[in-house]
Amino acid sequence: MKVIELHASVTSSNDKDAELLRNELTEKGVFLINLMSSAGSGKTTLLSKIITDLKGKVNVAVLEADIESDVDAKKIEALGATSIQVHTDGMCHMDAGMTRAGLEAMDLTNIDLAFLENIGNLICPAEYDTGAHANVMILSVPEGDDKPLKYPLMFRESDALVITKADALPYFNFDVEKAKERALFLNPNIKIFLVSAKTGQGMQELEDWLCTNLAL
Amino acid sequence: MKVIELHASVTSSNDKDAELLRNELTEKGVFLINLMSSAGSGKTTLLSKIITDLKGKVNVAVLEADIESDVDAKKIEALGATSIQVHTDGMCHMDAGMTRAGLEAMDLTNIDLAFLENIGNLICPAEYDTGAHANVMILSVPEGDDKPLKYPLMFRESDALVITKADALPYFNFDVEKAKERALFLNPNIKIFLVSAKTGQGMQELEDWLCTNLAL
Repeated sequence: MKVIELHASVTSSNDKDAELLRNELTEKGVFLINLMSSAGSGKTTLLSKIITDLKGKVNVAVLEADIESDVDAKKIEALGATSIQVHTDGMCHMDAGMTRAGLEAMDLTNIDLAFLENIGNLICPAEYDTGAHANVMILSVPEGDDKPLKYPLMFRESDALVITKADALPYFNFDVEKAKERALFLNPNIKIFLVSAKTGQGMQELEDWLCTNLAL
Repeated sequence: MKVIELHASVTSSNDKDAELLRNELTEKGVFLINLMSSAGSGKTTLLSKIITDLKGKVNVAVLEADIESDVDAKKIEALGATSIQVHTDGMCHMDAGMTRAGLEAMDLTNIDLAFLENIGNLICPAEYDTGAHANVMILSVPEGDDKPLKYPLMFRESDALVITKADALPYFNFDVEKAKERALFLNPNIKIFLVSAKTGQGMQELEDWLCTNLAL
């Protein structure tokens, strides 16, 4: 499995680079989603479920960004999806130049949907346009329904919020309506999905939304 | 409640500043713990439980560091503990200068044990010496037992690992022995506690360890 070591982007014009990358991907028919969340919220598990469910219908590629390990890319590769690991040299976010470098190392022929699994935290990734067509954030039930209060920028910058580990709701003091209300207060246009990759709850709705964005 | 807006420290000699702060706190009889974890792992809930359990025996102060909100400091204040909120101007870590600024805004007379509740992520906080006497990290059961593989620096830099939300073990695929093994492989000296702030499991052991460090 290939691993790419990334360093800070040479160019400082990240917004311009991001727009350029987005347009190029659109032309290639690749829809790129920037997936952001805290560490341990279930990004890789959710992606694994999506890849399995969409097999044969949608060709998925995953760009795994991590500080140093490659455990996630190995999991995705085991599912038969195109995957590459990038290391960010300690940086807690991905920018457009780093995303481009990662994507260029993959064969995107026939790929319909690409995910950038961003570095696991709710802070720095929200500040950089990666060139993705949509920002999707995950909030897992055990993290608590107060997270919109603490990380407002992440909620403001996201097109969709996926509340994961819904199967754990009976064991945690997580108020779904309060979480939704707080997210919508920060971002009235955010789409919200409540899912469990374990039981399959809500996955169809999320996958339908992902597919409406694709030029299949 | 006071809120302090912090910006990047003026001085670049963080290690020297940290050592100086540590010595000053030792002289004052204040033991400072730098508490680090991912967002939503239960830092504030754990602190609340410790404060309640040690009431009347140990005087606790909490320096709450957040990007912008003050929800955590309000929770701590409601318990009657000395607390102050600092905002990091978007930065995902605290350094020694920022920690000093926060502590200087609190009355530390009679305080035995101070906690710095660091910014919620497993990446940047591990890179800066805050001037604390001990680094303690939290890993909550829902985050998964593979976290040592992904955030090794945090485990290497921590004196103690507190595995929280132990009451959720029946509902998650979290192998305690594997998590311990992986943490000890990275850091053979790390002390490991398995606790639930909800049920009280393991709290006595953790609190005993905290108290052995204090000059009461």
